[in-house]
Amino acid sequence: MSYALVQEEIKSALQVKTNMTKKLSELLQQLQPYDISEILREMEHRERLELIGSLSIPEAAETLEYLEPEIQYQILHHMHDSEASPLLKQMSSDTVVDMLLAIHPLQAEQMLRLLPEDYRKQINNMMTYPEETAGSLMTVDYISARAHWSGERTIQHIRKVGLEAEIISYIYVTSVRGELVGVVSLKEIILADPKTHLSEIATTDVIAVPADLEQEEVANIMSRYSFVSVPVVDHQHRLIGIITYDDLVDVIQEETTEDFQKLGGSQPLSEPYFKTSVWSLFKKRIVWLLILFIGGAYTANVLEGFQDATEKVVALSFFIPLLIGTGGNTGSQIVTTLVRALGVGEVKFQDMFRVMGKEVLTGCLLGVSLGAIGYIRAVMMGVEVEIGYIVSLSALFIVLWASLVSAILPLLLHRLNIDPAVVSGPLITTLVDGTGLIIYFSIAQMILHI
Amino acid sequence: MSYALVQEEIKSALQVKTNMTKKLSELLQQLQPYDISEILREMEHRERLELIGSLSIPEAAETLEYLEPEIQYQILHHMHDSEASPLLKQMSSDTVVDMLLAIHPLQAEQMLRLLPEDYRKQINNMMTYPEETAGSLMTVDYISARAHWSGERTIQHIRKVGLEAEIISYIYVTSVRGELVGVVSLKEIILADPKTHLSEIATTDVIAVPADLEQEEVANIMSRYSFVSVPVVDHQHRLIGIITYDDLVDVIQEETTEDFQKLGGSQPLSEPYFKTSVWSLFKKRIVWLLILFIGGAYTANVLEGFQDATEKVVALSFFIPLLIGTGGNTGSQIVTTLVRALGVGEVKFQDMFRVMGKEVLTGCLLGVSLGAIGYIRAVMMGVEVEIGYIVSLSALFIVLWASLVSAILPLLLHRLNIDPAVVSGPLITTLVDGTGLIIYFSIAQMILHI
Repeated sequence: MSYALVQEEIKSALQVKTNMTKKLSELLQQLQPYDISEILREMEHRERLELIGSLSIPEAAETLEYLEPEIQYQILHHMHDSEASPLLKQMSSDTVVDMLLAIHPLQAEQMLRLLPEDYRKQINNMMTYPEETAGSLMTVDYISARAHWSGERTIQHIRKVGLEAEIISYIYVTSVRGELVGVVSLKEIILADPKTHLSEIATTDVIAVPADLEQEEVANIMSRYSFVSVPVVDHQHRLIGIITYDDLVDVIQEETTEDFQKLGGSQPLSEPYFKTSVWSLFKKRIVWLLILFIGGAYTANVLEGFQDATEKVVALSFFIPLLIGTGGNTGSQIVTTLVRALGVGEVKFQDMFRVMGKEVLTGCLLGVSLGAIGYIRAVMMGVEVEIGYIVSLSALFIVLWASLVSAILPLLLHRLNIDPAVVSGPLITTLVDGTGLIIYFSIAQMILHI
Repeated sequence: MSYALVQEEIKSALQVKTNMTKKLSELLQQLQPYDISEILREMEHRERLELIGSLSIPEAAETLEYLEPEIQYQILHHMHDSEASPLLKQMSSDTVVDMLLAIHPLQAEQMLRLLPEDYRKQINNMMTYPEETAGSLMTVDYISARAHWSGERTIQHIRKVGLEAEIISYIYVTSVRGELVGVVSLKEIILADPKTHLSEIATTDVIAVPADLEQEEVANIMSRYSFVSVPVVDHQHRLIGIITYDDLVDVIQEETTEDFQKLGGSQPLSEPYFKTSVWSLFKKRIVWLLILFIGGAYTANVLEGFQDATEKVVALSFFIPLLIGTGGNTGSQIVTTLVRALGVGEVKFQDMFRVMGKEVLTGCLLGVSLGAIGYIRAVMMGVEVEIGYIVSLSALFIVLWASLVSAILPLLLHRLNIDPAVVSGPLITTLVDGTGLIIYFSIAQMILHI
């Protein structure tokens, strides 16, 4: 769909005051809230207000959910309180919390005044959970019921409060004191006799997450059990919110982005790319670059140690980048595969010997192939035949060595509870650079007797 | 939870025949189907059959869903037809299809005979969709209704057919010829008056995916709109299945794994790590290793070109690995960040100049820092002061050059519709290795006048 085209149509419908509502609502009906949000983002402030104003409250709220906190605030702030208040109430509570945390505390205070007192307290409470925990992801827009309610009564209850609920697939059963005692799916309620009490059909061993659990753990639990939502409880096992599947997808994407950046040899960025300043980018990157630079500087000493060999046969130095590069490439292939396999639980520490066996065997095949090509390459350059042998043998042994190191290191770190993603491509490359040089020059000394 | 402990309890409950059912059902009630599947996987064949036999049909079916196709088949195959048939019918159709595709066609034929004819035809049809398309992910266990039905009648219909449905959050409205004409959420039905016709509350501009759409695209659409399920249609816009959010999570995880492997400089594996043979690992990895090895071999020519310089000042060769390594590390940091940002749509081709500006500025800061450290390092080794200057200046320019190349390349490839993940860490490292050497030796020639 071309957003630009639809946007033009909407703009002109907003301008022509006659028949505007009909034309506009026809246009808007063809669009999902997400699409409207994409169009709205490109509009000017005044147009945004008019567009949001022409939507129903639930549509407007869902459209706002897809926008950045700053835009949400700008729109709500410029609306009349009598319009902004129901809209804010309709938005899901986790979105509201994210918005309030992104704006100035005084502005947040103003916004909070638009909400009824009870809800304001809940929101205030939600704002206290640290980032990347279950508490910071949850919404309070869930449906709870009592164990002695019948299916019929529960459905009546949903009719009353369901509009503001983010998800009605699960109904959470709580005690008088608010403790989570059961969960029952709407499907079960509908399939059972309407007179059945919830206590008869509810699952009592509910899987719930504490509010301070890390978001990565929450995502693991939700995707393991294929939950559409998971309840969040406090230390007294009282139900305080739920986390829905769309947050799960966001968390997975966020954690994946972090892993990418770590594997690339950088500390993960805390903001999206364009929101990260040059100075922050520098700080996140310099840490590892410095470690690797200082660590990698030992290669200079290694080469100084083999200075005699290089001076006697200068052709040896030609193949340094190629050989150590190949070691790094092999290592990088293995490390990324293993870090991911550890992350999704395919590989565990106990599998160490299986992994080593597999990687060393594969390394043999790769080393022999590259060694053969290396020999041909060296001979083609017109260097002595001995140099060809040396390059070829070194390629084989460097690949084998890189395979072994890369197979062991991620598993070992995982075992020591260090995130294996710190074994980035750059780290493994730097590690095998120096040892690769030692292998290369040792073979050279043996064959050339220097 | 310790699975081993619960497993022991279950085993002994299975052995003691008296009171077995009571003790066992108590134990099983505390477990989710996922947990039971984990325990069952570690059991022997006979125990597996007994355990599955002691569950209700819906529980047994859900437990089977979490197991590998081979185990599913083994269990179903050894059950009496009268037990296997309802279980197979209860399992979600996408799981059944995956199982049938994993076993021998003759075995699949046998299994299919356990199903009623209509369903068998649907399953047979589903088996024809190629892997990684919408058709291969969909399930036929959805609920459809007619536009003239009232909410009340629809709920009655759900009561009748809902047990086998995988998800009842959305009801799909179809025409007499089976075309998808609308969608209505169960929430909307419950909140509306029971007499309301579906036609009054259904959304008519339904977002549906064609059966041959790639799974990555399907995942994008589902996560963009936060859908719990998305309908799949054929070329005549007839509803043929739905894809549910749990498949979305699986697809995201699968695609992420592929991206990891690509960024590590390997072709993505088509199977989990331990299921991939050494030979397959070799084939997936050798492609890029060879390309990089042959491509990287030009560094030997570059160094041969600067042979005079190396012979005159052998200390120059000491810093080769350190300097080109640093270029590669910088490139790797940028490339992984940008490939991910392109993947999630944070960065687009139009942002080229912004990205270049940001990266070159960051590169300046990084280059100056590393240059300073490089100078200190060279002086500490006791080489001449000029070499210190050369190493220091080279570090700065190599980092800048690597930043520029790494900023441009992923965006350019994305623009040319080539997956930017092919610009792996290893590729960028190999690319900037040779050019890094040219920068280094050119600066050396200028300063040393050689």
